[in-house]
Amino acid sequence: MLATTIHGLKDIRYTEVPDPVITRPTDAVVKVTASCICGSDLWNYRGENGEITSPRTIGHECLGIVEAVGAEVTTVAPGDHVIVPFDHCDNTCPACVAGYQSACVDRGFTVSGQGEYALVNHADGSLVKLEDAPDDAQLPDLLTLTDVMATGWHAAIMSGMSTTRPGGTAVVVGDGAVGLCGVLAASVLGAERVVAMSRHEPRQELARTFGATDVVAARGAEGEAAIAEITGGVGADYVLECVGTDQAMRTALAVARAGATVGFVGVPHGIEVPIRVLFDKNVGLKGGMAPVRRYLPELLDLVQQGRINPGLVFDQTLPVEKAAEGYRAMDERTAIKVRLTY
Amino acid sequence: MLATTIHGLKDIRYTEVPDPVITRPTDAVVKVTASCICGSDLWNYRGENGEITSPRTIGHECLGIVEAVGAEVTTVAPGDHVIVPFDHCDNTCPACVAGYQSACVDRGFTVSGQGEYALVNHADGSLVKLEDAPDDAQLPDLLTLTDVMATGWHAAIMSGMSTTRPGGTAVVVGDGAVGLCGVLAASVLGAERVVAMSRHEPRQELARTFGATDVVAARGAEGEAAIAEITGGVGADYVLECVGTDQAMRTALAVARAGATVGFVGVPHGIEVPIRVLFDKNVGLKGGMAPVRRYLPELLDLVQQGRINPGLVFDQTLPVEKAAEGYRAMDERTAIKVRLTY
Repeated sequence: MLATTIHGLKDIRYTEVPDPVITRPTDAVVKVTASCICGSDLWNYRGENGEITSPRTIGHECLGIVEAVGAEVTTVAPGDHVIVPFDHCDNTCPACVAGYQSACVDRGFTVSGQGEYALVNHADGSLVKLEDAPDDAQLPDLLTLTDVMATGWHAAIMSGMSTTRPGGTAVVVGDGAVGLCGVLAASVLGAERVVAMSRHEPRQELARTFGATDVVAARGAEGEAAIAEITGGVGADYVLECVGTDQAMRTALAVARAGATVGFVGVPHGIEVPIRVLFDKNVGLKGGMAPVRRYLPELLDLVQQGRINPGLVFDQTLPVEKAAEGYRAMDERTAIKVRLTY
Repeated sequence: MLATTIHGLKDIRYTEVPDPVITRPTDAVVKVTASCICGSDLWNYRGENGEITSPRTIGHECLGIVEAVGAEVTTVAPGDHVIVPFDHCDNTCPACVAGYQSACVDRGFTVSGQGEYALVNHADGSLVKLEDAPDDAQLPDLLTLTDVMATGWHAAIMSGMSTTRPGGTAVVVGDGAVGLCGVLAASVLGAERVVAMSRHEPRQELARTFGATDVVAARGAEGEAAIAEITGGVGADYVLECVGTDQAMRTALAVARAGATVGFVGVPHGIEVPIRVLFDKNVGLKGGMAPVRRYLPELLDLVQQGRINPGLVFDQTLPVEKAAEGYRAMDERTAIKVRLTY
């Protein structure tokens, strides 16, 4: 099949690779009908996850049609339209039952999500079937559910938010697609005030569309002072850290009120946790890889009811064979998030 | 007045110091009737909080009788028997209202708790009045509520435990007085299984008295393997970190199941948080100084109903003028916790 592949630093191609094959009775192969580029793909693109020593497929966010299933798969069948969570799970082990499918004992990942086909481990546990082929209008929204919207939602949930506890002030650190989805999540979950920390005008605008009541463009000490002013010196009740750098984490911890929790979903790169800051303010830290499957039913409902439009994070669309252009645009921050068509 | 003072490395004396005086209308002075030595006093005793350059009073856990109050104090009066939380708070600021009195905007501390008198900032916000003079049998229990029992309780609460969510397995790292009180807290809060990690036989015994269902004597990888076996490879639902060292924190994070939270109350000394471990398992970290005032009404009820006997952590009693002996005993771990009489 053809698939997007990475060959080295900022070297993305669309090349021939072996077709994925079913090796376990719980596997499925999905024919990809829509995919996109994730901010976390950029860590590899920029060489920040170590050198790429041999070419490999890249991409983990896709929708598609089931092409083939292993002998034990019962909930989906060839021809079904499905949402493919980037992290695969059996959805029955204790970690899954506890709501942490991202720590499933037999976790897998989509590894050729920007190719023609993707292998899914534990199809029954992972895939969510759509009743019909997604219409063009909802397709971008559905595509975000495979990772970025679920990850923003996870940041909000990990920070302690829930619909049964509305109100309060949420601060979102990071204005990438995940951060913007975090703004949307905080708003839908009922925060009274949602503060987006963003320096980029188009992203600020989208944050407001997603429900941000305030935008803080300043960073570092100045940004922290702005949050202090907004919260009357108290700090935020909920903080969503959606970047993964040390600076973002320090800001997140600094703007949290005593006893608040920072929900963090940015893959940590160079973070040194200032444990005494946590101790002195009783500020909690909780997060990690999003258990996408946990949130899918709820988020799918919200999309199908038209209550959320996370697909607005896509501000550029390219045919999949031009994926390299999309990586460049996201790397240079001329695009928030790029959708790939088939 | 006479008070326990520290003059340098392992140099504890009982000497004459100035009487505490009321300087603010919200202050009170309490005549100390009972006090004790805290594990955190040992950090200073051992020079681990920096060199002692001039003598100062030490000790922050005491009960007493109100001696004098400032003009604005309304809830206690001279002659009242009171419990003195080690951390003082106005109990009205946003941090206090949120339940984090230990981060009160105008936080104070008991600094001469092993002396004849102690100054209390924000007497109305901090002190809890007893209806009668405590009887000798309950005095040790009440004394633990000023810090150590409230701190063990805080570890349990921060790990996510509550009486409305009984069951599950709690692991307590640390068998100091706080860790033992953590065992008691986890048991009272309804954990089905409470695992005490303890190498010392008398402490193991007390842990069992406090409700431990299992005791793990091994440390490091061996200790972690023992917890894995107890929890069927899943890990603990609740982890209480009651030491404050890097090794204790690593163990705490390692034995937590995916999505669990480590409630930590040991004052951090040399802890480097392995953020990728948190991220990979979605294990949370929350804790800090205990908001003693928050828990006092509930814990006082439990003591008065005879449902908890945290005073059992005292295995040595000395007259206050012999406090130095008590420090030595706790430093050498020949005593779990030393009570001082007046």
